[in-house]
Amino acid sequence: MIDAIGVFDSGVGGLTVVAALRRRLPEESILYLGDTARLPYGSKSPDTVKGYTRRNIEFLTGRGVKAVVIACNTASALALPSLEMHELPTWGVIEPGALKAARVSRGRVGVIATEATVRSDAYPRALRALRPELEIVSRACPLFVPLVEEGWHDDSITEEVARRYLAPLLEAGIDTLVLGCTHYPLLVPVLQRVAGPDVTLVDSAEAVAEMVAAGLADRHLESTHPAVHELCVTDSGETFQRIARQILQDPGVGLEWVEVV
Amino acid sequence: MIDAIGVFDSGVGGLTVVAALRRRLPEESILYLGDTARLPYGSKSPDTVKGYTRRNIEFLTGRGVKAVVIACNTASALALPSLEMHELPTWGVIEPGALKAARVSRGRVGVIATEATVRSDAYPRALRALRPELEIVSRACPLFVPLVEEGWHDDSITEEVARRYLAPLLEAGIDTLVLGCTHYPLLVPVLQRVAGPDVTLVDSAEAVAEMVAAGLADRHLESTHPAVHELCVTDSGETFQRIARQILQDPGVGLEWVEVV
Repeated sequence: MIDAIGVFDSGVGGLTVVAALRRRLPEESILYLGDTARLPYGSKSPDTVKGYTRRNIEFLTGRGVKAVVIACNTASALALPSLEMHELPTWGVIEPGALKAARVSRGRVGVIATEATVRSDAYPRALRALRPELEIVSRACPLFVPLVEEGWHDDSITEEVARRYLAPLLEAGIDTLVLGCTHYPLLVPVLQRVAGPDVTLVDSAEAVAEMVAAGLADRHLESTHPAVHELCVTDSGETFQRIARQILQDPGVGLEWVEVV
Repeated sequence: MIDAIGVFDSGVGGLTVVAALRRRLPEESILYLGDTARLPYGSKSPDTVKGYTRRNIEFLTGRGVKAVVIACNTASALALPSLEMHELPTWGVIEPGALKAARVSRGRVGVIATEATVRSDAYPRALRALRPELEIVSRACPLFVPLVEEGWHDDSITEEVARRYLAPLLEAGIDTLVLGCTHYPLLVPVLQRVAGPDVTLVDSAEAVAEMVAAGLADRHLESTHPAVHELCVTDSGETFQRIARQILQDPGVGLEWVEVV
């Protein structure tokens, strides 16, 4: 897909970024890769995630994309800093999310993410680079992704899990909560209920779309063709298609199965 | 490891089978492979799981094992029937579990397992082949594996999830519950509480160990060396080591990281 933006995630979560890109840049084509054969990334080691990231980018560049968005917090945290070659403009989701949180916070930021993202310390590092005085509390929430995949987005069990995960952050008095995983925007109703109205939830999808729009304009890479959207997955999956339709509000969305080795 | 039994699973769950093998066959060496870089298998497609299974068996045979145990219900259900070559004696976990359930049930069997195992219909097929009159109700429980990996084995949230998953099975009046995933034995206290004292829980670990013992004796393949145990994983993982120690009751258990492509 010449002229497309390539976007990848381990699964369905990165589609929250695609939805934001479609809203902000309706004229841009998007080629999405969900690496569902190897998901989740969030419980795996840096070397494994780096290997998967490299192969996903090779797949997207092999299809001729003009830019790459790593729509996965874990891959952005672990692999983006060490990517040897940035032949194409490449954006992750950590920096835009941190920028937005640093702008809105009154001083205490909570970060929820996968185990691997939390262990990488990527958000606290990015936040402190912007505002060294910020107090930051992080918490890994490994059950949130399977709860979303189960379809229990807005559910009493999910709320109970959220209550337990968020307790130490709320006790620490956070005023801002970074949703450090692209699955988490689907949990916003539950998270806002548990966190209360005084905590601002920050997801990076909109911020990434802004950054991509500016970056393409800077490089004169704006689309010159009608927009076409394609979704690829490395494992066939009904769950993926069901949640994809929900996130993209696009009942006609089709899937191509691809091998990425 | 010449003379060892090769055992694999997507992760840590198959160690419940290793523990049973160690008890039943203390003189046998065991080489275990946890394919943690690609776990879980239970949400993935038959072709993907078949590919992973083939590569895991190649890894084990490459290390010289004398027999293979597929200690993963999903891989046993999806891949074992289509394995082209059984150069080595190879056992899965479905058949022994079904045998045990068919022996103890008073007529109504519940099966809980991963999505892929339930979709494969492997347990109902095996059970009906043994006792055609059995009534069988199956239910996929995708959150049980992440709950075990989170360490919430015996927990109020896990109990609430179990209550929801088991409700249709209990309403159907099951007297026997097949734990169709090697992670589930860790949930026995919760499952027995939710199912009540009149439901017999069946896990295949002991039954597999019996079958392997008989199979090795038939083929005169019993060990002639002192037992040595090795654990390999395809992704480095603290979680794996922590749960491995708990399941094997062996604080000195070490891990080797291996690449299986």
